[in-house]
Amino acid sequence: MTDKLIIFDTTLRDGEQSPGASMTRDEKLRIARQLERLKVDVIEAGFAASSNGDFEAVRTIANHIKDSTVCSLARANDRDIARAAEAVAGANRGRIHTFIATSPLHMEKKLRMSPEQVLEQARLAVRFGRNLCGDIEFSAEDGYRSEIDFLARVVEAVIAEGASTINIPDTVGYAIPELYGHFIKTLREKVPNSDKAIWSVHCHNDLGMAVANSLAGVKIGGARQVECTINGLGERAGNCSLEEVVMAVRTRRDYFGLDVGIDTSQIVPASRMVSQTTGFVVQPNKAVVGANAFAHASGIHQDGVLKARDTYEIMRAEDVGWSANKIVLGKLSGRNAFKQRLQELGIELESEAEINAAFTRFKDLADRKSEIFDEDIIALVGDESVTAAQEHYRLVALSQSSEMGERPQATVTFAAGAKEHTATAIGNGPVDACLKAIESHVQSGAELVLYSVNAITSGSTESQGEVTVRLQLAGRIVNGVGADPDIIVASAKAYLAALTKLYSSVERVAAQV
Amino acid sequence: MTDKLIIFDTTLRDGEQSPGASMTRDEKLRIARQLERLKVDVIEAGFAASSNGDFEAVRTIANHIKDSTVCSLARANDRDIARAAEAVAGANRGRIHTFIATSPLHMEKKLRMSPEQVLEQARLAVRFGRNLCGDIEFSAEDGYRSEIDFLARVVEAVIAEGASTINIPDTVGYAIPELYGHFIKTLREKVPNSDKAIWSVHCHNDLGMAVANSLAGVKIGGARQVECTINGLGERAGNCSLEEVVMAVRTRRDYFGLDVGIDTSQIVPASRMVSQTTGFVVQPNKAVVGANAFAHASGIHQDGVLKARDTYEIMRAEDVGWSANKIVLGKLSGRNAFKQRLQELGIELESEAEINAAFTRFKDLADRKSEIFDEDIIALVGDESVTAAQEHYRLVALSQSSEMGERPQATVTFAAGAKEHTATAIGNGPVDACLKAIESHVQSGAELVLYSVNAITSGSTESQGEVTVRLQLAGRIVNGVGADPDIIVASAKAYLAALTKLYSSVERVAAQV
Repeated sequence: MTDKLIIFDTTLRDGEQSPGASMTRDEKLRIARQLERLKVDVIEAGFAASSNGDFEAVRTIANHIKDSTVCSLARANDRDIARAAEAVAGANRGRIHTFIATSPLHMEKKLRMSPEQVLEQARLAVRFGRNLCGDIEFSAEDGYRSEIDFLARVVEAVIAEGASTINIPDTVGYAIPELYGHFIKTLREKVPNSDKAIWSVHCHNDLGMAVANSLAGVKIGGARQVECTINGLGERAGNCSLEEVVMAVRTRRDYFGLDVGIDTSQIVPASRMVSQTTGFVVQPNKAVVGANAFAHASGIHQDGVLKARDTYEIMRAEDVGWSANKIVLGKLSGRNAFKQRLQELGIELESEAEINAAFTRFKDLADRKSEIFDEDIIALVGDESVTAAQEHYRLVALSQSSEMGERPQATVTFAAGAKEHTATAIGNGPVDACLKAIESHVQSGAELVLYSVNAITSGSTESQGEVTVRLQLAGRIVNGVGADPDIIVASAKAYLAALTKLYSSVERVAAQV
Repeated sequence: MTDKLIIFDTTLRDGEQSPGASMTRDEKLRIARQLERLKVDVIEAGFAASSNGDFEAVRTIANHIKDSTVCSLARANDRDIARAAEAVAGANRGRIHTFIATSPLHMEKKLRMSPEQVLEQARLAVRFGRNLCGDIEFSAEDGYRSEIDFLARVVEAVIAEGASTINIPDTVGYAIPELYGHFIKTLREKVPNSDKAIWSVHCHNDLGMAVANSLAGVKIGGARQVECTINGLGERAGNCSLEEVVMAVRTRRDYFGLDVGIDTSQIVPASRMVSQTTGFVVQPNKAVVGANAFAHASGIHQDGVLKARDTYEIMRAEDVGWSANKIVLGKLSGRNAFKQRLQELGIELESEAEINAAFTRFKDLADRKSEIFDEDIIALVGDESVTAAQEHYRLVALSQSSEMGERPQATVTFAAGAKEHTATAIGNGPVDACLKAIESHVQSGAELVLYSVNAITSGSTESQGEVTVRLQLAGRIVNGVGADPDIIVASAKAYLAALTKLYSSVERVAAQV
């Protein structure tokens, strides 16, 4: 048992499975670079067999990331595993993460397989994978609700086949720290070759205890890998939050006695990038990365903090990257300064043409906004990378007006492929009018299931607005994000981005552990 | 030790202390009524001695709430306690909650008192309170970081003086479930008269473990009261979430063996009301009350859920109030239907004139929006209650226009007291132009620290937009919320509401336990 705790980030796989959080290849690569800067040990980049798009995303990340292990999920079958192996082949360190459900409920109702069939399939899958990749992780889906003696047999068998990491997920978020910790401990004791693998925990937050459960798995159970996501992104109530689990281990080193390799000053930048990319807001009272996490409102608290900081503070805001990112660019900043800032932000655009296009947008923004913050740059490049991905729909011009007592009106000109269209509509508000104008031509029939706006930077009314639009059509859910100082323009951009995604997205299989 | 777990909600006290979450008396009363419908055992309504406004809020709630105990916080001094007693005097069941810090750090650096002085002050405070109120709760602020033998002496003394509830907060969110549970257990064993009081836990979420810590205090430590807030609202990373702790106890009754009196079907309505009132968004991946908490995105999950619901679901969405609130009103709905819906929503307007004004707004909205959801009604009444509270600034008329490539322009007419003003400005976007027009006349000098928009109801572009504007001026932070189908109008309303609050808000003392 080592005293290093391995941080396995699955923002790009389990996190991306949140309804509406799906990302493009370029968005995933940008986040992967930030995860590398954060120094996570393992990046689960996707589920290669689920779609060609996700295969490409995993492969691109494997080819670009140098320091972190890059991992792909795979069901316990040869096709999935071969595809995962192919996707991570270019990585400095690649991993295949294969899984099969082991709980009675899942085996009977979902897999319709007997326990012996499951055991055999797990064994064969790991054997097959081990021939393709030196680093195999095995997950027993719904592991915490599995019959422990059967689970021990499965784990023993896959370790014997060469699995070097064993993950026991609480797939449905049902665990309690004390019970989960002892479950892992007992299980390890029942597996004769348990010391041949690193044990891992993967907890969901349905009852709000994912972090505590993961840490009990570590402290009581002896696990040395935690699977987690930025902002706790993930299906339903999400996964264990990377930022919370890391700061708990750091802050309570007296109790855990473990090291984590994370560069915590990259936590807040990572949180913002994930939030901006997916359009999933972080609530102000979110631990570590919420806007209020380090705010002291009450008189007594402020007084206490002034007298002695640690009366109410157990972490320092600057340690997790707050107050970083305040260096600003402006209209006088040149191309080199812009390029350098991109590099410092971990953003690598693929070609000079892309840098030039982004720089043009930067100058355009700088004409309208005196201070350009890192968030603005990230939004701008986000815009850019959509363009780079050959967006189908693109905003060309927009005019709108409203007056209380009258119905607002908007005229929108947009490109659909090579053609331009202009449409006018009235609506309940100018945003509604704009979206109706676009829809009157496109006739997607998509349902708007979410509309939200956040000011990207605070401190003045000249902030850019960042609009997230979530559309649902025939069971598919996509997010479009658009940024502009004009909220109506940002809304139109977001709507067109969502439509573009809707038409380019491919049905794919997804999985959860 | 009983098998009933007492739910003590402090949304209106500790929750309200979040920067920007301060509420008016009427807003607090509306939430208190919802908490009563939720059947919480104790409502901590405020901190009566902190300001005249909060005194009035506690008194109003005490006079209107019948089923729940109504509690006021008070520092451990006679003036605070007398004020709290006066505020809760009209309650069916009133409680005074007095506190003093007991950790070495807080006693030395903040209170500048010796342990013996603290012990004596705690004893005298409870003795004084016990003469004014039959139900006294004592909290040892920063209790978890206190020296346990000293803390045991304090607790023994205050129980001897008649405190019937003893709360041991983890004020700074530093605890770990296992450690906190055993701390409470050991402390209870050290206090000879421990069985004369109900023990309570109050945990903060700085490391993401408030719920698990609270439950360890219950399971391991034997506490039978949990202090919590709706949506986990509260200073910094917030408090233990009511919805998570309640659903954990219900879902894992096999482990906890405890009853809670909560009507869980009121959880989602309560969450929405608190979010709309404070402008604090709930992130989509928030457990229980997040928009995605019951969403299944991935193919495998959807397949599993279709085959057997419990493969991925441990709770049912309808049990926590999702899918309720879908009954809609429309333009043909009459005054009685509207009034009845208000009653069902727990909204009681004080006079016929207020109901009439709200109904007029309802009809106005119904002309523009075909389906009126409960959220719309809550927003509408929120608007109304601001008016009722004699808002100083009020929107009269607004017109704006923007065109890509041009600078947007807005003209706003608003009332300031009895006078009307019209101002025009240009800005980076139409919202910026509007706010600048208002500011050009008011010249508040306030800093805009947050701007966010959420569609109140989903499902169509004709949703109302709800805008939250947070202003900061000379250390004071206020939120203004405005709703309208036109996002620009909603923004102007929100800004004027925030300005009104800024000018009416009174400096007050606040405290945290």
